[in-house]
Amino acid sequence: MTTEATDTDRYPVLDDGFHVFDTTLRDGAQREGINLTVADKLTIARHLDEFGVGFIEGGWPGANPRDTEFFARARQEIDFKHARLVAFGATRRAGATAAEDPQVRALLDSGAPVITLVAKSHDRHVELALRTTLGENLDMVRDTVSHLRAQGRRVFVDCEHFFDGYRANPDYAKAVVRTAHEAGADVVILCDTNGGMLPAQVQAVVATVLADTGARLGIHAQDDTGCAVANTLAAVDAGATHVQCTANGYGERVGNANLFPVVAALELKYGKQVLPPGALREMTRISHAIAEVVNLTPSTHQPYVGVSAFAHKAGLHASAIKVDPDLYQHIDPEQVGNTMRMLVSDMAGRASVELKGRELGIDLGGDRELVGRVVERVKERELRGYTYEAADASFELLLRAEAEGRALTYFRTESWRVIVEDRPDGSHANEATVKLWAKGERIVATAEGNGPVNALDRAMRVGLERIYPQLAKLELVDYRVRILEGRHGTGSTTRVLVTTGDGTGEWSTVGVGDNIIAASWQALEDAYTYGLLRAGVEPAE
Amino acid sequence: MTTEATDTDRYPVLDDGFHVFDTTLRDGAQREGINLTVADKLTIARHLDEFGVGFIEGGWPGANPRDTEFFARARQEIDFKHARLVAFGATRRAGATAAEDPQVRALLDSGAPVITLVAKSHDRHVELALRTTLGENLDMVRDTVSHLRAQGRRVFVDCEHFFDGYRANPDYAKAVVRTAHEAGADVVILCDTNGGMLPAQVQAVVATVLADTGARLGIHAQDDTGCAVANTLAAVDAGATHVQCTANGYGERVGNANLFPVVAALELKYGKQVLPPGALREMTRISHAIAEVVNLTPSTHQPYVGVSAFAHKAGLHASAIKVDPDLYQHIDPEQVGNTMRMLVSDMAGRASVELKGRELGIDLGGDRELVGRVVERVKERELRGYTYEAADASFELLLRAEAEGRALTYFRTESWRVIVEDRPDGSHANEATVKLWAKGERIVATAEGNGPVNALDRAMRVGLERIYPQLAKLELVDYRVRILEGRHGTGSTTRVLVTTGDGTGEWSTVGVGDNIIAASWQALEDAYTYGLLRAGVEPAE
Repeated sequence: MTTEATDTDRYPVLDDGFHVFDTTLRDGAQREGINLTVADKLTIARHLDEFGVGFIEGGWPGANPRDTEFFARARQEIDFKHARLVAFGATRRAGATAAEDPQVRALLDSGAPVITLVAKSHDRHVELALRTTLGENLDMVRDTVSHLRAQGRRVFVDCEHFFDGYRANPDYAKAVVRTAHEAGADVVILCDTNGGMLPAQVQAVVATVLADTGARLGIHAQDDTGCAVANTLAAVDAGATHVQCTANGYGERVGNANLFPVVAALELKYGKQVLPPGALREMTRISHAIAEVVNLTPSTHQPYVGVSAFAHKAGLHASAIKVDPDLYQHIDPEQVGNTMRMLVSDMAGRASVELKGRELGIDLGGDRELVGRVVERVKERELRGYTYEAADASFELLLRAEAEGRALTYFRTESWRVIVEDRPDGSHANEATVKLWAKGERIVATAEGNGPVNALDRAMRVGLERIYPQLAKLELVDYRVRILEGRHGTGSTTRVLVTTGDGTGEWSTVGVGDNIIAASWQALEDAYTYGLLRAGVEPAE
Repeated sequence: MTTEATDTDRYPVLDDGFHVFDTTLRDGAQREGINLTVADKLTIARHLDEFGVGFIEGGWPGANPRDTEFFARARQEIDFKHARLVAFGATRRAGATAAEDPQVRALLDSGAPVITLVAKSHDRHVELALRTTLGENLDMVRDTVSHLRAQGRRVFVDCEHFFDGYRANPDYAKAVVRTAHEAGADVVILCDTNGGMLPAQVQAVVATVLADTGARLGIHAQDDTGCAVANTLAAVDAGATHVQCTANGYGERVGNANLFPVVAALELKYGKQVLPPGALREMTRISHAIAEVVNLTPSTHQPYVGVSAFAHKAGLHASAIKVDPDLYQHIDPEQVGNTMRMLVSDMAGRASVELKGRELGIDLGGDRELVGRVVERVKERELRGYTYEAADASFELLLRAEAEGRALTYFRTESWRVIVEDRPDGSHANEATVKLWAKGERIVATAEGNGPVNALDRAMRVGLERIYPQLAKLELVDYRVRILEGRHGTGSTTRVLVTTGDGTGEWSTVGVGDNIIAASWQALEDAYTYGLLRAGVEPAE
């Protein structure tokens, strides 16, 4: 027996009356496209502990060497402040004892103070997938829970496919809950494993099972109906006091109940403190940090933590928000560490331009005439195909040009030329030549690239870097093209959005034209101009 | 008054007892990053009508020229099979009559048979944002609804911020509902405008308002708590018979209630038929097609329709699924036009290739080996960035090439070259030269265009038309570009989708490369080849 197992003082728990249980490292890792190393798992565990969840399910020790190593290293390397580490495993095999079962042994060997056992609770699954009898399955639950309890571990039991099982055979499903509870499991978790439930069903089943068994109940919801968060809350409404979630809702198929909207609802809507004080304000940062570790782009539209979660576009909304931000926001974004953003578009009017100006540190409040000019200019350009909500840097350049009466200029374009050639051997050549003026000097530069825009970008940089060495840090990080309108032969318009970075930040610019290369050139001009402005370089003319 | 307005026979409705109301074109367009042209809106309206929603809210005629044009063109160009077109607008201004109000006039002028009016129902918003009295706001609702009804329009009233308003002043919020109902509004929609509600709250409020007012109620939910789908269903549980949704959940901030999981839950979980028979099987295709139009990558993890929605990763699940797929899936993916994917098997694809072949009139049922070859080829090419879902013609060419053992060839490319030049006077020149072989003849042709791809297209046509006069009818009707992420810092890949028409139909082709011009050339080659095949021309070699 390991000492950690009984050393509860090492793991102070916020409040055992309600459990926030995270399974990002186990169930979340089942998401298509996620493949975690041990180092990734340790980093995520640190983030989750810092956020303040009560339990971190780390994996299935014994099932694969990576998970075994994770438990060994987590015990050594992480000084958990809030969370207890949980090992996941199955009930013992049919026809043997728990004490003899190597899989159960591996759970104890992990040293985790808490063990979650998955148990079948759907009669058909017991017979078809487990291929044993209903009675033996109950014995497996009873025996495994008792054995782990006798070894001093806290035990939670996940009833797999509980809701489908309950529909098929409610007495048997409840018998599994009762058996786990009576054998000493602290919490019995009702799992909607295939994710097919809706909140009203979950609430009714949890309420009945709670009344009929007296067990402490938890909920584990998958998101296949798009209702995992609501299903989790419905179970809480019915008396569940343990919620299993994953960061950003990662998980098999559609995913699991998303930890962030669940804890936000519990704290901000239910007024129930389930995390350490102040934790919620770190939520946006933690969400993005975990997305970085698993190497997935953070969802821009995730509730509470997405970059668009408090972004406002409609003119109607913007004018109301100026009066009072609470009119169009259900919470103050700062409560979850996010920020409000105003998007500038032709749907918007004066109010959004003023708010945007304030966001950029340019106060336009006093100058109605200037704001009017900017609105007109935005509308006129959006009609031609520009879009400023996705091109903050181009909008700032436009705003400054109107405010200062002239455009910010570091260089001027005389002309450029691109040649793209498909050779008889199937290879491609891309060559660009640019002719520019900067600080009174004429610059002619030529470069090759893997495409026409890349060649132009390189030629521009080759030409300007000698005069503006600050450009060396700039990197084109994203490039998007959209062809607008142009049905039936009429000249179409091309819109290009470019995202550029300098190592400390990123900005987006837009270019529009009847020609993809010309539109790209425009976006690149803005990108370089804004990069120089950011670097604090004085305009040349 | 327009004749369409009262011509209800033109718009047969599935069942007026329950409304599936789509607002992708109005509220969905508020999503950050979406900027729809009139042509985009018309295409989306066609998809939604084909899917079978009852109402399509097209925008706010009069508020911006784009929406006005949309209504004018939709009436002319779309022969709606299922949906009625809805114009969105506001109640009249304070202190005037509805009959005099130009904004109300524009709603009538749109010719839409149904009008949704947004009305304030939160006392604080009336005073702070609308800056009028509570009594005048009720008059505005009454007067505007009556006026539109007198003009023969069906009227729905959106009660903005209803749930917050109800919390602040339930009597006033209900007075707005009652006023709209008594003035002749068919449905009064309770809107959770800032998206802060949870299902239990929605259910309680809808039930009370229904009992207290007797109005027919609808629900409009935003997804800020991650519960928009559940909130919509909770309102239906409480007696709402009208649901407002957007395709793929597009909408301001986090988004709106997602149309697809809402209708799937209603049909598959509630057993309520809300769409024409068979519509649900088109859901995955329609979802992806709309994502293409708005130029957003379809969410891989969207419930029901995401490519990962029925993807199973390994081990425990895979073996159980072999026994019985229902063990790990809440529905049969075919019910929503999606497919199960085993992430380690080549099972996926076979069925769809066979189905697709049948659709194209090529029966592959008997030839397992051929189907296997096509699946392999599609997989290999999709890995490189091709997509065949949106490029039917390229898929058919691939299928025929495999079936016949060689590619269909009308011409061969020796080489091509494009020059794009920005001149000192600001004008652009685009010149393309192509060298081709057709029917044993070498062809060299040069043409100019308004962009590099247009120049290439023209040069190709100039060169080939003498040999294939059928090409004269061909027209490039749409052109889309997507930059696919480079994996691990390697260069990104460009994907081009081209839609071509010949007056009797349209077809789409795909090209992929590290170079936008080369990818476009590939898509054009397929487009011309398919055009000649369609015209019944015999391959040259």
